[in-house]
Amino acid sequence: MKLGTARIGDSTRAFRISGDRADYFDAKDVGELLSQPDWRSLATRRGDVPVGSALVSPVTQPRKFICVGLNYYDHAAEVGKSAPEFPTLFTKVPTAITGPRDDIVLPALSTEIDWEAELTVVIGQQVKNADDQQAAAAIAGYTVINDVSVRDWQRRTSEWFQGKNFDRSTPVGPYVVTPDEIDTGAGLTIRTEVNGVAEQQGSTSELIFSPVELIRYISQFLTLEPGDLIATGTPGGVGFIRKPPRFLADGDLLETTIEGIGTLSNTIRFEN
Amino acid sequence: MKLGTARIGDSTRAFRISGDRADYFDAKDVGELLSQPDWRSLATRRGDVPVGSALVSPVTQPRKFICVGLNYYDHAAEVGKSAPEFPTLFTKVPTAITGPRDDIVLPALSTEIDWEAELTVVIGQQVKNADDQQAAAAIAGYTVINDVSVRDWQRRTSEWFQGKNFDRSTPVGPYVVTPDEIDTGAGLTIRTEVNGVAEQQGSTSELIFSPVELIRYISQFLTLEPGDLIATGTPGGVGFIRKPPRFLADGDLLETTIEGIGTLSNTIRFEN
Repeated sequence: MKLGTARIGDSTRAFRISGDRADYFDAKDVGELLSQPDWRSLATRRGDVPVGSALVSPVTQPRKFICVGLNYYDHAAEVGKSAPEFPTLFTKVPTAITGPRDDIVLPALSTEIDWEAELTVVIGQQVKNADDQQAAAAIAGYTVINDVSVRDWQRRTSEWFQGKNFDRSTPVGPYVVTPDEIDTGAGLTIRTEVNGVAEQQGSTSELIFSPVELIRYISQFLTLEPGDLIATGTPGGVGFIRKPPRFLADGDLLETTIEGIGTLSNTIRFEN
Repeated sequence: MKLGTARIGDSTRAFRISGDRADYFDAKDVGELLSQPDWRSLATRRGDVPVGSALVSPVTQPRKFICVGLNYYDHAAEVGKSAPEFPTLFTKVPTAITGPRDDIVLPALSTEIDWEAELTVVIGQQVKNADDQQAAAAIAGYTVINDVSVRDWQRRTSEWFQGKNFDRSTPVGPYVVTPDEIDTGAGLTIRTEVNGVAEQQGSTSELIFSPVELIRYISQFLTLEPGDLIATGTPGGVGFIRKPPRFLADGDLLETTIEGIGTLSNTIRFEN
């Protein structure tokens, strides 16, 4: 099943794709939908599939948006790190989220704008101290993000938060695909293209900590809840480690794809 | 004015202190209250001041809970750092919050449990690219937190998130005091006591980045919203730098006080 969220007037509404139409739920986003245990059997109303900026992030106000750093062997190696013993965790705040078709408008504070395509887990049920089976059951589905990173701000201090949380800099979507439709362990191609040229490509089979392992690890110390997001890290091929570095420029088209989930398509705009 | 949030049955309700009683608003917490621009003139219903665990965190579900590291000269010095050029920012998630009178129940994953008393700004209005005047106007009030830190988990990776986000480990409250009642720049005493012994004491006049400077800095890259929290960092006297280190033990009473705001009183409990 493919779930998403559409902008309708001043509000938003969760939907599922059904053929070439959509069935709309009485929930403001996929996060709110998933917080209802019987969401699969809720009443729906038929409508059009949203296009363009009417398609918003599946989860618009996650209570948690946890990100994992250094979680592909090739990316850890390219930034000079060995494979980690523990996942590196940091967060994004809801204001950092933007839609799968929106422009990413950045203030004139930095020119070091880099890409990071990431498979992202959407939590479907509350879970604490999960074993493997409970962790797998807590996964409602998978979506795509690009953890667009402002590298000089990320490096200003030991903590990466400020380089990862510029307003509306992180596209999320286009859909949440349920685990019965895709097998992340078997390997889904994950790719960033800039102006049609592949800059970053990997396979989700190369994750150091798998989605289930991440949920087990994180749920040791905190409770995961419906609608929480866990971005699982980016494969090799980021821009800042190139010689010379390669960053995004005004007008660049950033396309982020995971096989079986879909493509984020966002144009970079620099404010003057 | 002193604002707070009370547990009432399965829900919560914001109130203001009025003499020896409380006036209850139709809002589930101070965050929701502050998101209504006319909150000062909303209708209220008179009731008792909540006591014990009926007094909960003023903001129960902040959209952002941003924390600042290394923001007092004496604390930066005691951990071997010089005064920073930029604030170090990281976050807590809502599941990390507990009430001002609740036990802090910790799993048997660590014995390195440390204290960090912190003055915390509560945002009252949406603000982006604030100047000094706009930043000051965006402050609804101040509250107290103890950024209880699991030091070995904090050090597992470069990012501090996992040592700062154990479930219900961060007491917040007891009240939000509006800026007309206290002057953080003139210097409020901030103190952590363990079993009645002062372990950490400082003055808010020793902050490296003031509340207004933090709002100016942060609002350069993200939009602050009503109910957002900014914990401004801890003064010198944390436990892990002592020789030998001093950590919290099962049964310890942790009291965290800022002059003019109030005291958090929490007992540490270790799960077996």
